[in-house]
Amino acid sequence: MGWMADEKGLGKCQANYVPLTPLSHLQRAATVFADHTAVVYGSHRATYKQYHARVSKLASALAGIGVMPGDVVTTLLPNTTAQIEASFGVPACGAVLNTVNTRLDIGTLTYILEHGEAKVVMVDSQFLSPVEAALALMNGAVPKIIEVADPDSGFLASGRHPEYEDFISKGNDSYSWVMPSDEWESLALNYTSGTTGRPKGVVYHHRGAYLMTMGTPISWRMVLKPVFMAIVPLFHCNGWNHTWMMPLLGGTVVGCRDVSAKAIYNGIAEEGVSHFGGAPIVLNMIVNARAEHRRNFDHEVEIFTAGAPPAPATLIGIEKLGFNVTQVYGLTETYGHVVECLWDSIWDELPESDKSALKARQGVAMPMMDVTTVVDSTGTQIPMDGKTQGEIVMRGNSVMKGYYKNPEATEKSFVGGFFHSEDIAVQHSNSMMQIADRMKDIIISGGENISSIEVEGAIMAHPAVSLCAVVAKPDDKWGEVPCAFVELLPGKSATETEVIAFVRGKLAGFKTPKRVVFQDLPKTSTGKIQKFELRVIAKTA
Amino acid sequence: MGWMADEKGLGKCQANYVPLTPLSHLQRAATVFADHTAVVYGSHRATYKQYHARVSKLASALAGIGVMPGDVVTTLLPNTTAQIEASFGVPACGAVLNTVNTRLDIGTLTYILEHGEAKVVMVDSQFLSPVEAALALMNGAVPKIIEVADPDSGFLASGRHPEYEDFISKGNDSYSWVMPSDEWESLALNYTSGTTGRPKGVVYHHRGAYLMTMGTPISWRMVLKPVFMAIVPLFHCNGWNHTWMMPLLGGTVVGCRDVSAKAIYNGIAEEGVSHFGGAPIVLNMIVNARAEHRRNFDHEVEIFTAGAPPAPATLIGIEKLGFNVTQVYGLTETYGHVVECLWDSIWDELPESDKSALKARQGVAMPMMDVTTVVDSTGTQIPMDGKTQGEIVMRGNSVMKGYYKNPEATEKSFVGGFFHSEDIAVQHSNSMMQIADRMKDIIISGGENISSIEVEGAIMAHPAVSLCAVVAKPDDKWGEVPCAFVELLPGKSATETEVIAFVRGKLAGFKTPKRVVFQDLPKTSTGKIQKFELRVIAKTA
Repeated sequence: MGWMADEKGLGKCQANYVPLTPLSHLQRAATVFADHTAVVYGSHRATYKQYHARVSKLASALAGIGVMPGDVVTTLLPNTTAQIEASFGVPACGAVLNTVNTRLDIGTLTYILEHGEAKVVMVDSQFLSPVEAALALMNGAVPKIIEVADPDSGFLASGRHPEYEDFISKGNDSYSWVMPSDEWESLALNYTSGTTGRPKGVVYHHRGAYLMTMGTPISWRMVLKPVFMAIVPLFHCNGWNHTWMMPLLGGTVVGCRDVSAKAIYNGIAEEGVSHFGGAPIVLNMIVNARAEHRRNFDHEVEIFTAGAPPAPATLIGIEKLGFNVTQVYGLTETYGHVVECLWDSIWDELPESDKSALKARQGVAMPMMDVTTVVDSTGTQIPMDGKTQGEIVMRGNSVMKGYYKNPEATEKSFVGGFFHSEDIAVQHSNSMMQIADRMKDIIISGGENISSIEVEGAIMAHPAVSLCAVVAKPDDKWGEVPCAFVELLPGKSATETEVIAFVRGKLAGFKTPKRVVFQDLPKTSTGKIQKFELRVIAKTA
Repeated sequence: MGWMADEKGLGKCQANYVPLTPLSHLQRAATVFADHTAVVYGSHRATYKQYHARVSKLASALAGIGVMPGDVVTTLLPNTTAQIEASFGVPACGAVLNTVNTRLDIGTLTYILEHGEAKVVMVDSQFLSPVEAALALMNGAVPKIIEVADPDSGFLASGRHPEYEDFISKGNDSYSWVMPSDEWESLALNYTSGTTGRPKGVVYHHRGAYLMTMGTPISWRMVLKPVFMAIVPLFHCNGWNHTWMMPLLGGTVVGCRDVSAKAIYNGIAEEGVSHFGGAPIVLNMIVNARAEHRRNFDHEVEIFTAGAPPAPATLIGIEKLGFNVTQVYGLTETYGHVVECLWDSIWDELPESDKSALKARQGVAMPMMDVTTVVDSTGTQIPMDGKTQGEIVMRGNSVMKGYYKNPEATEKSFVGGFFHSEDIAVQHSNSMMQIADRMKDIIISGGENISSIEVEGAIMAHPAVSLCAVVAKPDDKWGEVPCAFVELLPGKSATETEVIAFVRGKLAGFKTPKRVVFQDLPKTSTGKIQKFELRVIAKTA
């Protein structure tokens, strides 16, 4: 411990200690990047000076209707101007930002609004009905609605609630922001997707989000003034914290209401988009884009992908098109990505298939994390042999404060001084982690563990397959057997027998799916395949 | 303040709170950049795995001779392997790193060793004599000497003290580092150059150095694996914290014993040096390099320059040679640079002279700082009109803890919640600060303030002038008048009358130097011109 013999007069004071918060980035950017484009969405374009002014008006208007520091403000918004502005405008009045998935059912929405005690809900006109329905079902105090119309996209104000532009026009653009006096203060409340049971409310602090913004540019090879397209919904880990990061770099955020290959290609060609994040399904979308939606561009576009390991075939396909893909890994509980598949240039000369296999690994700790590793059930580091499986655990400043109003679940997730991911992985000799499966997605057949991801990777290499998911199907003899669900590429065909034969040449017999079902895969709004739905189908498939 | 209605279970714990320290970067790099080159100096080359092992041995060996957490370990070393390793090895055993200027007189050295209560001194064989002399003069406990020989450079071990390589060979490469349990713990002790009175001991904490390393890559447009040449002595603000930063990026540190144009060109051509910092005098050295010392290279080299505003003529000269210069500004008290001359691409099309004038501005707050601005004597923000002068003040996490054993000086420097730089500046309408002068370097002539920097800039534009410094000369009529000291370029000549006539065409009459003296300028080891010596000469010039 580095305390010197005499530490008199060496304590913290106003001059040398300022709580870390991503809010500071926009305050700085409003001056140092004043006239640079900060936000683009449809016909809306704002410089940093204008962005800062609009954010200040939002904060001021929220304070004006009684939002107090520590209060929760909920948003149900696509990645539009209002959602981008809420990233700063809500915490700038001291409130806690609760971005909610726009596709939730009314019951879950009601639960979240009650549990978080939201004081205000900012909602896009498209999603107004379910919010009104949820409010009608709520017990206790009901939040005020601010409706966000998007006339350019055909969503007009209902007239039943204050509209966003009117609302902020009453705010003060020189409003003095409520900055945290302690960097541990709460910044955001994000409910997990909760495939079983009630969603849990993950609480972020200012310190963690600030450090996310400082570490990410290094991993993402960002220099000043990148152009970032908000593909990942901002209701998913606050879009991996990227809107909080962009003012640090003087970058531009390009909003996106509906994710499509066309929208992405247009962003790249017209706005010069240099970076975006997205689930592997977004990568597939780009690879399989129709010719008339593709655009030419002459810069390399950096993609962070997460949510599932990208299939080698997808990686090979997209990198030929001018994109460089880095897989990152994390959870809502870790503010998004905290592990990166850090590329080593000595791998540059490997064959494409080997490179893809390496890129399918989740990787190593990002700069802002302390420890990310794999342990066995006793908490002991597993051998880094690429075979032994264990659970991914993490420690660092980008780990949540805990679950809101759920100290028991918090304590459980932090057992042994690490956050427990419930993801099963091996670790390679260079310490790179590779996910074998979600704990609950492991298929146990005849006592053998089968990684659903491994089987999916084998199926994805089939030239007719666009997307697939493998889940456990109950089996009298083996306990469970793998059951595959497959989406085919347009114009391509394959039979169950062909797919099974194809996989049998690559994997051990017990890992080969016993059933292959061809159908559209159910997905969350963030592109994650909803395996719990498939498990229901698999039972009788 | 963002405290939610119910913060139960949302406190800090081992999983979600880790004290910030630059030590974490090398621990991560030893794994994620294991086989990448970390340090190059002469014939020494080490990968990150090897660097980490040697640092661990150093820490272990220091602990082995009784160095305890909080103890001070002093180094008197050029930018050699040992000095680079001490950046991590000393704090890794919990000790406080006290890098000392190798050119100090014995009296000042004795004062520093006594004041800091150094337990160990690591000293290069070249500088052993003054250290031995200082130890002989010391009152109280005398530090142990570890001698660092540099046989490649002709400096052999004296045989009178343990030698560095022997010393660390007894250390344990799997020594468990002493990590801070509080990020406010002391990391380094840096004595100011103290041109008047005793030097003051500036204390750095782990948090501040960590945040320096996170903010600097953004300002310096660094992506992964830069090659950094240590030109700025590591005893000057710990080389602006760059050795602490490099493992974050997986970069390579190239040591440098003696700074010369030849050494810099060789580093660029042979090691691929991409970044270095240096005073404007280093830029001059490059511009004026002899033909046989120049090397060809095909990448752009990024230079941070600080210590004095670079003269426009120097900037124009060096940028033609493949270097891009960014002026940064800071003080020992701010861990080095905290202000950057952030370039706006809209200035790209301006004439060279306008661009140079913009680059001579100190600039705006770097990302890790909260506020850097200019205030009048009452602490009020000055008008941003490019004319009104005030003092530069700073607030942020990269401001020192304070002065060691000097709470009065600490309190004085932090008056009003800002660190007071004692530098006089104007602020332009885009908030960019431009130093007019050090408070003590201002020349007051007939009641008018004359910026010595402005006069120097005018003289530097003369085609025969290599370097110059302007100081106050006492004058019966005007109080003070400007007196210029000039170094001419090799083979060029100029007379006093010519220089005065040249300047008179550019500046107001009262700003024109009344005397011009041609001589070599006295400089500190960091390239700063020692004006206090010139003031003595000016009295009778």
